[in-house]
Amino acid sequence: MITQSVADVMTPIVQTVTTGATASETARLLAASDIGSAIVVDPETDENLGIVTESDIMHQVATDADVATVRVGSFMSSPLVTVASTECIHTAAELMKDRSVQRLPVVDDGELVGILTTTDLVYYIPRLRREILRRRTALLTP
Amino acid sequence: MITQSVADVMTPIVQTVTTGATASETARLLAASDIGSAIVVDPETDENLGIVTESDIMHQVATDADVATVRVGSFMSSPLVTVASTECIHTAAELMKDRSVQRLPVVDDGELVGILTTTDLVYYIPRLRREILRRRTALLTP
Repeated sequence: MITQSVADVMTPIVQTVTTGATASETARLLAASDIGSAIVVDPETDENLGIVTESDIMHQVATDADVATVRVGSFMSSPLVTVASTECIHTAAELMKDRSVQRLPVVDDGELVGILTTTDLVYYIPRLRREILRRRTALLTP
Repeated sequence: MITQSVADVMTPIVQTVTTGATASETARLLAASDIGSAIVVDPETDENLGIVTESDIMHQVATDADVATVRVGSFMSSPLVTVASTECIHTAAELMKDRSVQRLPVVDDGELVGILTTTDLVYYIPRLRREILRRRTALLTP
């Protein structure tokens, strides 16, 4: 079986914001970094408390919140649904489906080492297909 | 080879907005429908001109635009990168990767019939794995 791991396809760089960051500050960070989410950390303990996504910021716009003052601690998703970097990709895809999330922070031994997104997984599908074809040919060759 | 088509996994319902809709009106529509994008149509000809996503709305927040007045016609992505419903899933995944998009409007004979997202494709990965296992067993059974 093809068993690539989360480590093979995750994005190894993660941005963090503190609970006190405003929606517009966070939007500027995400836009400048060309990413769709940031991990929300406790400013005192540095603990990973939740995640804030571009979708969450859009929902603040939808509810007419003042994006210049509303703080991510009040609208982040928490607790985090995480995955280990050694987990197989199919298990991560199932976890995303079961928990209805599009991003999984990757945590090894309590340390945040990356993030896995639906985009990372889709970019892996063509590779998966080539692997299937290669192995099928190997199986069928006497 | 496993050749499921876009029609098998796409979301068959698509929301549309006109070019004159504001960012906050669009955010309310997306939030109420629990979706991440809408197709932008010409209010006179009903032609599909572009797409607006939750990411685009976040970018408006990032640039301090007035979301109550800025209109989607000014910040939508255009022209559309589309796919046919009969196309195979792997080709659609490659198209997403090559064009750096996370959503493909599905168009058959000029008519918008659905939308394919990275989330739709990730939800298909566990199914793909089961199919691979089933076919491998069939190949190895004398």
